[in-house]
Amino acid sequence: MDPEEYRRAAYASVDYIVDYFKTIAERQVVADVEPGYLRQLLPSEMPQEPERWDDIQNDFDRHIVPGLTHWQSPNFLAWFPANTSFPSILGELYSAAFSAPAFNWICSPAVTELETIVLDWLAKQMGLPSQFLSDSEGGGVIQGSASEAVVTTMVAARDRYLRDAIASKYSTEEEKEAAIAAARGKLVAFASDQTHSATHKAALIAGVKFVAIKTHPEEDYALTGSAVTKAIQEAEENGLLPFYLTASLGTTAICAVDKFIEIGVATKEYPHIWKHVDAAYSGAALVCPEFQHYLAGVEDFDSFDMNMHKWLLVNFDASCLYVRKRKDLIDALSVAPPYLRSSVSDSGLVIDYRDWQIPLGRRFRALKIWFVMRTYGAKGMQEHIRKTLGIGAHFAKLIQSRHDVFSIATPPRFGLTVFQVVPSKSGETANSLTKKVADRINDEKVLFVTASTVDGLFCIRVVTGSPWATEKAMTEAFEYILKVSEEERQT
Amino acid sequence: MDPEEYRRAAYASVDYIVDYFKTIAERQVVADVEPGYLRQLLPSEMPQEPERWDDIQNDFDRHIVPGLTHWQSPNFLAWFPANTSFPSILGELYSAAFSAPAFNWICSPAVTELETIVLDWLAKQMGLPSQFLSDSEGGGVIQGSASEAVVTTMVAARDRYLRDAIASKYSTEEEKEAAIAAARGKLVAFASDQTHSATHKAALIAGVKFVAIKTHPEEDYALTGSAVTKAIQEAEENGLLPFYLTASLGTTAICAVDKFIEIGVATKEYPHIWKHVDAAYSGAALVCPEFQHYLAGVEDFDSFDMNMHKWLLVNFDASCLYVRKRKDLIDALSVAPPYLRSSVSDSGLVIDYRDWQIPLGRRFRALKIWFVMRTYGAKGMQEHIRKTLGIGAHFAKLIQSRHDVFSIATPPRFGLTVFQVVPSKSGETANSLTKKVADRINDEKVLFVTASTVDGLFCIRVVTGSPWATEKAMTEAFEYILKVSEEERQT
Repeated sequence: MDPEEYRRAAYASVDYIVDYFKTIAERQVVADVEPGYLRQLLPSEMPQEPERWDDIQNDFDRHIVPGLTHWQSPNFLAWFPANTSFPSILGELYSAAFSAPAFNWICSPAVTELETIVLDWLAKQMGLPSQFLSDSEGGGVIQGSASEAVVTTMVAARDRYLRDAIASKYSTEEEKEAAIAAARGKLVAFASDQTHSATHKAALIAGVKFVAIKTHPEEDYALTGSAVTKAIQEAEENGLLPFYLTASLGTTAICAVDKFIEIGVATKEYPHIWKHVDAAYSGAALVCPEFQHYLAGVEDFDSFDMNMHKWLLVNFDASCLYVRKRKDLIDALSVAPPYLRSSVSDSGLVIDYRDWQIPLGRRFRALKIWFVMRTYGAKGMQEHIRKTLGIGAHFAKLIQSRHDVFSIATPPRFGLTVFQVVPSKSGETANSLTKKVADRINDEKVLFVTASTVDGLFCIRVVTGSPWATEKAMTEAFEYILKVSEEERQT
Repeated sequence: MDPEEYRRAAYASVDYIVDYFKTIAERQVVADVEPGYLRQLLPSEMPQEPERWDDIQNDFDRHIVPGLTHWQSPNFLAWFPANTSFPSILGELYSAAFSAPAFNWICSPAVTELETIVLDWLAKQMGLPSQFLSDSEGGGVIQGSASEAVVTTMVAARDRYLRDAIASKYSTEEEKEAAIAAARGKLVAFASDQTHSATHKAALIAGVKFVAIKTHPEEDYALTGSAVTKAIQEAEENGLLPFYLTASLGTTAICAVDKFIEIGVATKEYPHIWKHVDAAYSGAALVCPEFQHYLAGVEDFDSFDMNMHKWLLVNFDASCLYVRKRKDLIDALSVAPPYLRSSVSDSGLVIDYRDWQIPLGRRFRALKIWFVMRTYGAKGMQEHIRKTLGIGAHFAKLIQSRHDVFSIATPPRFGLTVFQVVPSKSGETANSLTKKVADRINDEKVLFVTASTVDGLFCIRVVTGSPWATEKAMTEAFEYILKVSEEERQT
């Protein structure tokens, strides 16, 4: 493909994308394919001869696009949103063209410098405590996902704990090493039972135990200070060593917000426990001042992570991780062989983000963030958050207006409504009826919702954060859910 | 930005990229900026109001592009290449538009299915052992980088070892747990002293010890079977538990190839040691049959990883990891809360790649691979490999033709030449002179090379794998290096 062929192919691809978004509302939201569909359509070996772009584009349209689930569709109400936006797509386009695994500053200085700048911009716009800005001892770094942010901070936490809380008690290297070896098997990470599974998975990766702390409906399923105190004490009584805790600003199932201030107080006597805030989805709302009260207490935490790639108009991946002490990451993750050194890195004048993350290489992800921030401005981002929150509130109101059919499981928060379908016949439980409704909705593929259990209640979760969402589409979604629910209540 | 504004902005961006590649050879290869340059050019807070694309594009051109290092330039001779290509850029463009964190099959079935297909295509084209194909017990998965591939397999190896070699000796849960806790601090991973630092870093992340096994010039710095046997025995004598070994097909500093057959024999009695092949750069050459003899012995290994994003025309990131037993990954990494389950996933009919990797979410990276494979065909890829190898051989020959000035440190391999500058004056060492030459080359920014040490020798590494490389540009690069070297020899 020469430059002129590329120009033609790229123009055609841009046109295809424009048509895609213009027709997104009419597309069936979930792919209508069976497992293994693509294997039957493509050859079993790669082509030997070069092929023409028109043929590739044609196969793409016939074979790939029908296998896509459309996350930007107004009918996509599952999990959490995964926004994309036009300026974000342009950022990826340029990033692919300038491809560089920018592990060091000199690899491509703009990649590092723009990242520091846009993460500072975001931190200020969200009202994060100043400890997370790059002019402090901390700073921000783009990770691929909230899961990686948890693994990265948990590894740093583990090593900091083993060094500061264990090895420091001994004087000789042999004693230190023996004490660390003995302690490894006793480390325990905490999160609430509502926390995303990423913390549990990170504990598997870091090779430590994980304890899920039980939450309660009376507390809106938030992790409280007293529950944390109790969990720490129980762990210590069992000979375990608590070193990490995830608190959530918006849990996965129901968007609960943990009690940051209480947790800060409860862990005051345990300075070696790393406290992480997972605000993966809900953190986006912090660009609006009216939500920043949720941050009270976060100044006591070691790290904070939110995904612009969920609700903040930047396409996956763009997980923005902030740490209070960058040294903690670098101490745990830096390995500097001669071929990764450069005079400017050795001078300490620049950031080498490779030491702030698990992988060595990294893409130019700051570019799409910068394009989105400038194209929307803070006001445009706030408008997007408030508009989609309004659509979520509209749906919650519709659900609440029919308390003969639906019951809300937890208070609607951050645009998410979690509800059950109320049975009309004796012998049927809300759990089994709700499951029937959820299964039928997802089988019919008019909408896409997520089913989940909250404290034993089988619920349907509905949330939209798509820039293409409309109140009208949400009203239609409600009417469809109502129709299915009424039918299932009768059968 | 509405769809029509996007169309205009995207067309203009495509044109910018075409111009970029048409002028890439004339651009100064390394960014000519000082640390902190961008902070002075951009505001300290994000814009509040939306801005026009023309203004953003203009600032991008003035402020960002001058801060880029041009990895596709024919004058980029540092590290290893990080190719991009036009069809790969188109893959990223579409991937950003269809953005989905495709953690489950149903998230976007084409994302999963195309990945399995193109990784099978690649494995067959490279002549990998059949244990790595998806119709065996193994299969391939796209990782972000070779570092993540090492971490992922090391975590799986660690957990397999603790289960199969430790816990299995005990009968009660308490005994198993105590034995595992005691073993954690004794686990040790091996690699040669020439292996990429990723294995050392992975050991830090997995919380295990790392031992670099010394290699020798007589063996071309390859890891041998007898060295592995000795390392295992020494570790066991010290009470350590060997569980993981990285062997390289093309080490970082000099592209050494470890002795896979010998290592297989040496570890025959140690079935619990996970053996990984890191072919990050050189693996690309395997698409040509004349290099597949290097794979002899790889059938004894548990995993194999190569980066299409280095030398195989797909932009970063596209690290292709193959494992012999996918169950090993899933056992170590699967956490399945209700909200991540779906009927089709529970049926076992589909792959959920989230259980084959550290993060939960994942981008649609198979698309760019598919576009590149079809646009080039196997023949086009082979042509690219052979052409760039020819340019590398041409450079090596030029260096060898001036043995009065240069001495080759190790035999040229996979297009990489590693050499020293020979001093002409008494009192000067080859190390200090070579360092002077390397520093001046990189300071003048006409070329970009990597300096590294091999067994105490300070060397310059020169390699190109860029699709934009030419023999003429390489001749000019040689002449420039010769001129600088001759000048530095006189001063």
